[in-house]
Amino acid sequence: METLTAAVLVVGNEVLSAKRADQNGPYAIRVLRERGVRLEALLTLPDRLELIAEAVARERARVDWLFTAGGVGPTHDDVTLAAVAHALGRPLVRHERLVANIRRWHARHGGEPPEAALRMADVPEGTRLAGDPGFPVMAVENVVMLPGPPEFFRLQLDAFAAELASPPFRAASLFLALGEDHFAAALDGVARAHPDVDIGSYPRFDEADHRVEVTFEAKDAARVEVALRAFVAALPEGAVVRRHGP
Amino acid sequence: METLTAAVLVVGNEVLSAKRADQNGPYAIRVLRERGVRLEALLTLPDRLELIAEAVARERARVDWLFTAGGVGPTHDDVTLAAVAHALGRPLVRHERLVANIRRWHARHGGEPPEAALRMADVPEGTRLAGDPGFPVMAVENVVMLPGPPEFFRLQLDAFAAELASPPFRAASLFLALGEDHFAAALDGVARAHPDVDIGSYPRFDEADHRVEVTFEAKDAARVEVALRAFVAALPEGAVVRRHGP
Repeated sequence: METLTAAVLVVGNEVLSAKRADQNGPYAIRVLRERGVRLEALLTLPDRLELIAEAVARERARVDWLFTAGGVGPTHDDVTLAAVAHALGRPLVRHERLVANIRRWHARHGGEPPEAALRMADVPEGTRLAGDPGFPVMAVENVVMLPGPPEFFRLQLDAFAAELASPPFRAASLFLALGEDHFAAALDGVARAHPDVDIGSYPRFDEADHRVEVTFEAKDAARVEVALRAFVAALPEGAVVRRHGP
Repeated sequence: METLTAAVLVVGNEVLSAKRADQNGPYAIRVLRERGVRLEALLTLPDRLELIAEAVARERARVDWLFTAGGVGPTHDDVTLAAVAHALGRPLVRHERLVANIRRWHARHGGEPPEAALRMADVPEGTRLAGDPGFPVMAVENVVMLPGPPEFFRLQLDAFAAELASPPFRAASLFLALGEDHFAAALDGVARAHPDVDIGSYPRFDEADHRVEVTFEAKDAARVEVALRAFVAALPEGAVVRRHGP
């Protein structure tokens, strides 16, 4: 089954410098997961044009969709649109529909937009506008440029993600009474025999009723089941505390 | 003033696939900030050797210290040590002190370690062990390889970071009644005139008493003050709701 893939690039000095907790990355993880989209990378980088351009060029080549978060406002630290333009080898051009939106917004608040506000309409040539015409999502090639304020990021990601259709992930977990050391070789064998199933092993070191959760995941529930059963067959009796899903 | 820099690479299928919220990245942000270390990137990548090796090689070249989180256990999805070895062009070698630790741990729990457990002692050649001899921090060149379980990540990061001494950041904020459009040009001028001060502009769209927080930050409080005052001088009367710091 075809699986859509994505990466998310949070442009955020404020996150790296501990001024703000990142809300957009965790939100994107959840939404993309619900849409059956495999997230391949989540990067938080400073507001520096050359770093962002380099990451955009690199990451977008590996995935179906690259989402950027932040850096689309009118101030000097808003460099995402210019960085994406640079990464794609496209000029920045003033988008007339965005200009009209900005003028309308300022007119409602009783004035003309200053030049700084109009800079928000300078986007990579070929940028498409999707969703709400008054607050459109901006996309160019496979790069979707989302705003940083979390309430706006959510609105726009939700709007864009609603159009992405990828089959849901099917996942199951085994909760084990054994430490990882004691089943690592068996699990390695199962992972090699089932390369189409993502298998993860997550130990815990507290007073829970299990020592490790082993997760099995694919788009096809039957394959998950086959891999899980192969692993159970290799475990000593009593090793499985319980199972969950799919 | 010299500023130490760092990057953090979270190795985490479980984070990208929404199985676990990342606790290590946010913790590292806070600890590095408190130590005066500038965090240049926070990356979350899947448990894939070639992706991690590429990121390690790239990111460690830009910073003083690269911290990895996770992927150091005994199972098939633990590929960080091999990826770091690959990135540095070093072979994996079995470290005798780590072997002794693993043997001691298993002896306390009444047994011999299986071969899978000993794989945790296969580290990039030249790996140094720091801190608690029974649970040492592993570092090679400028790459520090930390465990993924949050309780262990914190212990080891705290131990390592205690040795990092960089002057503290000095930050101040202005809370403004104006929207960004109306001061973007003035702030751009101040940012250009004070390239040694990091200036950020963070709008909000709720019912707070201000519309934007503008932050000024450097290692030298006097420079922060000069840049902040230059900006205040360019603002219309009544624009500043209040100021905070340094």
